[in-house]
Amino acid sequence: MFEDQNAKRTELSELGEFGLINHITKNVVINHPGTICGIGDDAAVFDAGGKQMLVTCDILAEGVHFDLTYTPLKHLGYKAAVVNISDIAAMNGTPKQILVGISVSNRFSVEAIDELYAGILLACERYKVDLAGGDTTSSRSGLFISITAIGEAEQGTVVYRNTAKENNLICVSGDLGGAYTGLLLLEREKKTFEANPDMQPELDGYDYALERQLKPEARMDIIRELKAAGVLPTAMIDISDGLASEILHICNDSKKGAVIYEEKLPIDTIVASIANEFGIEPAIAALNGGEDYELLFSVDMKDYDKVMAIPGITIIGHITDEASGVNLMSNSGSLIPIQAQGWNHYHDNNI
Amino acid sequence: MFEDQNAKRTELSELGEFGLINHITKNVVINHPGTICGIGDDAAVFDAGGKQMLVTCDILAEGVHFDLTYTPLKHLGYKAAVVNISDIAAMNGTPKQILVGISVSNRFSVEAIDELYAGILLACERYKVDLAGGDTTSSRSGLFISITAIGEAEQGTVVYRNTAKENNLICVSGDLGGAYTGLLLLEREKKTFEANPDMQPELDGYDYALERQLKPEARMDIIRELKAAGVLPTAMIDISDGLASEILHICNDSKKGAVIYEEKLPIDTIVASIANEFGIEPAIAALNGGEDYELLFSVDMKDYDKVMAIPGITIIGHITDEASGVNLMSNSGSLIPIQAQGWNHYHDNNI
Repeated sequence: MFEDQNAKRTELSELGEFGLINHITKNVVINHPGTICGIGDDAAVFDAGGKQMLVTCDILAEGVHFDLTYTPLKHLGYKAAVVNISDIAAMNGTPKQILVGISVSNRFSVEAIDELYAGILLACERYKVDLAGGDTTSSRSGLFISITAIGEAEQGTVVYRNTAKENNLICVSGDLGGAYTGLLLLEREKKTFEANPDMQPELDGYDYALERQLKPEARMDIIRELKAAGVLPTAMIDISDGLASEILHICNDSKKGAVIYEEKLPIDTIVASIANEFGIEPAIAALNGGEDYELLFSVDMKDYDKVMAIPGITIIGHITDEASGVNLMSNSGSLIPIQAQGWNHYHDNNI
Repeated sequence: MFEDQNAKRTELSELGEFGLINHITKNVVINHPGTICGIGDDAAVFDAGGKQMLVTCDILAEGVHFDLTYTPLKHLGYKAAVVNISDIAAMNGTPKQILVGISVSNRFSVEAIDELYAGILLACERYKVDLAGGDTTSSRSGLFISITAIGEAEQGTVVYRNTAKENNLICVSGDLGGAYTGLLLLEREKKTFEANPDMQPELDGYDYALERQLKPEARMDIIRELKAAGVLPTAMIDISDGLASEILHICNDSKKGAVIYEEKLPIDTIVASIANEFGIEPAIAALNGGEDYELLFSVDMKDYDKVMAIPGITIIGHITDEASGVNLMSNSGSLIPIQAQGWNHYHDNNI
C-alpha cells in the first residue's frame, strides 16, 4: 500500500549471511562505556559491576535449521538451548540463564510444545542454567525458536576471536564432521521414507553421527579443564559453521594467517566411514560440515604440555603471519588455501 | 518419520497465550541465587555485582504482529526496539543494550532490511541504547524479529507486577486506545485498497492514531519524572495487551482487587471520534485495545500530590482487597467486572 515499486532491489543472496551482517553493522555506534564488545563475536560483552556479562542470541527456523520430519522436538529444544550455551562457552564464560522465545503455528499441539520445553529444561538442568523468561507468540507458518543466553566471566578472562597471536597453537576439542554426516544419513532416510512410507529408518550402527546432529553438547567441560590447567586461550570460537569458516573468522579478525594439518584433523572412524559411504572426503566433512559445536581455540606455545594433558583436545596447526594466508597442509604435502563454505541459506529458499 | 501418530493432541487454542505460558513454566526450577525474578514479569531480573540486570525478549511475527501492507519497515524496526525498551521501563530500569535477531525470507531485499535496521538504529539513538549483537538467519516464509533488551537498575528500585497494595492509587501514563483505533483505520484502508488498488489511502486528520499504532514510544520520560519526583511505584506493567489485561495481571499477581473509573480513562478526542466512527465505545477501545505501550502503575496514597504534578499521568482508580474483584465503575454508576480480552492469536491463524 505504501510500497515504493521503483525502489532498487538487491537480493540477500548477493551478500550472503556474513555479508549481510557486515552490511547491517557498519552503521552501528556504541554509546555506553559498559558495552565492551558489540557485534562480531560469539556473544556481546557488558561490564556489570566487577564481573563481565555475556549475552548471545540465536534463532532456529523450521525448514532452515531443522526438519521436523526427523528431528524429535525434545532433541530440538535441547539443541536450541545448547547452541546458545556453546556461544557463552566460546567466550570462556559460564552460562547462567536463558530466555526462550517461540513463535509457533497452530499446526503444533500443546503436547508438541511440551516436548520442546522438556528438551530445553533438560539442557537447563544439565548445564545448570535457569530458564528465566521469554516470549510465546503464534506464527503464520512453522516454528521459530529464539534463545538468548546470559553468562558471566571474571574480569580479564573473556576470550575473543580477534586476539590470536603468531606462533600460537591451534586446538580443537572433540572430533569433527559428525553432525554433518548425521545430517546426510537423516536426509537419505527422509528420501527413502518419502518414496515408501512403510520403510523403517535404517540407522543401526550410526548412533554416534546421529547423536552429533540431533543432540550436540556445549563443551563446558573443556572450558573447566582449561581453567583447571591454568590455560587461558588467546582466541576462541565455537564451530557452528564448520572448521574452515571458524578458523577464517579467527584469522581475519586477528589479522593473522594459519596452517592446519589435514593429518591432525580429529575425525571419528564411524564418521570417516559414513563420509566415504557418501563419496565425501572425511577431511572435507570435518572442514565444512557445521553444527559440531566443538571449540576452536589458540593457545600460547608455552601451554603445549598443559593442553596435551587434557583428554579430548587436539592440536591441529598454528597461527602464522597474515600474509601467509589461511591454509591446509594436505596429507600429500601441498598447501591449499582454506575457503569458507559456511551455510549460505539465502540461495536455497523460496518465499 | 519418528512421529507418534497416536499421541494425544491438545490444541494451543484450548490454552490461549497466557494459559500456555503458565503450562510451560510450571516445570521451571531456578538454580542460581543470582536469578531474582524468573518468568512472569516484563523482564527477568538478575543480580550483577551491586546492580540489578534486566533482560527481556519479544518476538514480532509477520502476519501476527504486523502486516507489511501498511507497516513501513522503518517504523516496524523502530517499534520492535521500542516494545522491548518499554518492558525495561516497566521494571523501572534503564535500557542499555539490545540484541536483534531476524529471520527473513528471500522475498526481502537488502534495501528492505536496511530500512528495518534504520528504524532499529533510530530507536537506539533516541533511547541511548547500544545495538550490541544478534543473529541473522533466513526463514522459509515471512519475517520474524526477535529482540532482546538489556537494562539495569539500582538495588531496591526494580518495580514488579505483584507488589500492589490495598488503597494504592492506580495511574496510567498518556492516553489509551490510540494504537487500536490506528489499527482499525489501517485495516479499513487495506480492504479498500484490496478492492481497488488505484484508491489512495484516506488517512488525513488521523495522524495521531496512526502514529500510536505505527510508531509507539516507550515512556522512559515518565520513569525519569517519577524518579525526579521521588516516587517509587508499588507495582508497574506496560500496556501491550490492553488496560483490562494489564490491570488483571497486576491484581492477580498481587492478590488484590481494583476499581477503575470509566470517566477517568484518558482518551484523546480524535481517538474517541475514530472509535465512534467504527461503532465502538471509546472506553472499550481504551480497555481492550493493545499496543499503546503506556505505563500502568500503582503508587502509595501519600504520593498523590507528587504524581498529580507530573504532566501526562492520570489517576484512574485504586487497589482494593482481592475479594472485591477487579471492576470498572461505569459512567452510569454500575460496577462491571473487568475481563481480559488480550490478543489470543491462536484462534485466528491457520498453518
